[in-house]
Formats: sequence, structure tokens, C-alpha cells
Amino acid sequence: MRRRSNRAAYDRATIAAILDEALFCHVGFSVENQPYVIPTIHARDGDHLILHGAAASRMLRIGSEGVPLCVTVTLLDGLVLARSAFHHSMNYRSVVILGTAREIVEREARIAAMRTLVEHVAPGRWAEVRPPSDEELVATRILTLPIAEASAKVRSGPPVDAEADYALGVWAGELPLRLEPARPIRDPRLDAAIQLPEYLANYRRP
Amino acid sequence: MRRRSNRAAYDRATIAAILDEALFCHVGFSVENQPYVIPTIHARDGDHLILHGAAASRMLRIGSEGVPLCVTVTLLDGLVLARSAFHHSMNYRSVVILGTAREIVEREARIAAMRTLVEHVAPGRWAEVRPPSDEELVATRILTLPIAEASAKVRSGPPVDAEADYALGVWAGELPLRLEPARPIRDPRLDAAIQLPEYLANYRRP
Repeated sequence: MRRRSNRAAYDRATIAAILDEALFCHVGFSVENQPYVIPTIHARDGDHLILHGAAASRMLRIGSEGVPLCVTVTLLDGLVLARSAFHHSMNYRSVVILGTAREIVEREARIAAMRTLVEHVAPGRWAEVRPPSDEELVATRILTLPIAEASAKVRSGPPVDAEADYALGVWAGELPLRLEPARPIRDPRLDAAIQLPEYLANYRRP
Repeated sequence: MRRRSNRAAYDRATIAAILDEALFCHVGFSVENQPYVIPTIHARDGDHLILHGAAASRMLRIGSEGVPLCVTVTLLDGLVLARSAFHHSMNYRSVVILGTAREIVEREARIAAMRTLVEHVAPGRWAEVRPPSDEELVATRILTLPIAEASAKVRSGPPVDAEADYALGVWAGELPLRLEPARPIRDPRLDAAIQLPEYLANYRRP
């Protein structure tokens, strides 16, 4: 993925759409100059990104201490097959957010953040499931990161070949790739009378 | 994605399979304690990971200077829908590699690395396309990173609910997600007589 300036987009709507479609992000932080990059679930709440996980998570503990973070979200849209090895690429949409996070400590705000996370993954789910208990709230750390220093990069469309290469007899174009749901797998302990909800039967990212 | 110790796997075969299936990785590096996480294509060459891109890329220039890197690869396998908000999760496979890279400078080794990258994305492609020119080789920086300090994490299977929650009347289970190819899109300038190659018509990750 060659990063050309014309692939950079900075408008808020593009950034929000990428964050909302993606199911997970990668969180980068450094400890004594060693970077770590950890995959985790995120959700957007307006102009903030919410991260969460086990209270014992090193990533979340360090993230709560105000150190610089980098959160990157990448959606792969397809392969770009050029006539030369050099001009091969991928179509993708990515967002990079730099900033420092703070921990959400207030009880109602924490429950609201957990709701935002569940609804990000499966809209409609929160109303059906058991909400967090006090013990579960204690076991969870939740961070909020401003989506302020953020940029998006997008590549789309066909390959851009060297002019002389268009005469070559090799197939060129795009192979789109999409994250598609397969048939849901019922929990082995699920009561046979419980039907698959519509929001899972027709699951689709925004 | 709560990171429990029983999700950690360290065998080389697991790590290699995740790296080989994934089409891209996220490279983490730090500049004055600010981490950056950049998506890019990778390929595995035995016990090394190959990264490449424009010679002007900051990530590759910094990576070539022997600074600590973290390369993370994540494959999302599905949603894990539990009966409580708290026990929701995702099924995934991820690899984290820590280490320092070095630049590949020798011409034949650089061409071999580019071949490995193209064949990682689309096996069979290298033999059909125009190989890199001298100018293209100069414009490309290629790094190699030992897959030595590496670990994998894998979550699979149904939700693990609190025992009392199994009596709740909410659907629970897995929604598998797969990266699926859609119909290839021909380059608008492609000669109508050129047929789609078999390795794209039946594209599938290993």
C-alpha cells in the first residue's frame, strides 16, 4: 500500500464511516521505546473512540495513564492487479488517530459506553442481553480517546500502470474482497425454541 | 477481545499459518515516544517477514534504522454473541512480532522478496506480470524482520456465559465472518480478449 498524498482524506464524515464499519482496531502504545500493537474492539461515540477490555489488560492500563496512543482502523476492499509487479496494490480505507485517552470512571457513563460497544457490533443486541453486573463493571476498564488528530487514507479503483505496460497481454483489474457473514452457529446449550434474531439473520456492516 | 492466557499459542506452525493467510499487517514504530501504527502488505519468507513500500515511506525508513518494531496481523473469524453484554467477544487469530528489521539491499534478494510479496497475495501472478525495472527497484525499500519474538492468540468456539445466564431466553452463538472475493472488475483499458486467470477466478486464502 504505497501512501501517496492523493490518498489522504481528512473530512470527518469519511473518518466516521470507516470507524463505524470496522469491527476492530489496532491500538499502538510504547513502553521504553518498544512499540506494541494490539487488536481490540472499538466503537465511536460522536467525536470520541471508546476502547475497553479486562481491567488487568496492560494495554488499557497504560492507555489510561495519558501516554501517547495511535489507533489505526483498516478496511481491506480488494486486490489491485496491475500489469507490472511494481504497480500491484490494494484498495483499502484506513484511519489513524493519534492522541491520549482517559478512563471513563462514572458508573452510568461506563454502562453507556458498554452499550455503544455492543450496539456497534450488533445493533439491536443491547436490549436483549443481560446488562453488566457490578462485578463485571469492576472487571472492565473503558477508555475514551478524542477523534481529533485523525486522518483517513483511501485507495479505490483500477490499477495505474506504466503507459507502456497497457499493451501487455496480462489480466488487470480489481478483485473486490468483502467481509461476509456465514451461517450463524447456535450455542450448543441454546434452547431449540429460541429463534435467530433478524439483526443477525441479515447481518451487514453500515 | 479479552486477552486470556489460554488464548496464547506459540507454535511456529500456528504463527506461520496466520501470517500466510492474512493479506496485510499493521506495523508499529515509535518516534519520540509517539507510536504510529501503519497498515501495509507483508509476506513470510521462511522465518522472516518481508515488508516493502515506497523508498520515501517514513515507516520503512525508520524501520530500516534498527529501531524496535511491532508487527501485528489479525484475522477476524466471527462475532461471539453471549447472553450477557459482558461476555460478548470475537473469534480471531492474531500474531504479534517484536523485533528490529534490516533493509534488503542486494539486487537479486530484492527481486526475490518482491516475488514473495506478489505470490503471497496471488500465487501464480509473478510469472505473468512485468518484473521490476531498475527504476522501480530504486523506488522501493524492502525490509526483513525475523519472526523470532512472536506469539499468536486464538479465540474460537461458542460464547462462555455465566452459568445462571444459560437460562435466559436470548439467542447465543457465533456469527462467522469471512473475507470473500466478489466478482472481479476488469481494468477499463483491458483488451477484451484477455481472460481472467484461474488463480483469480477461484481466489481463496490458504
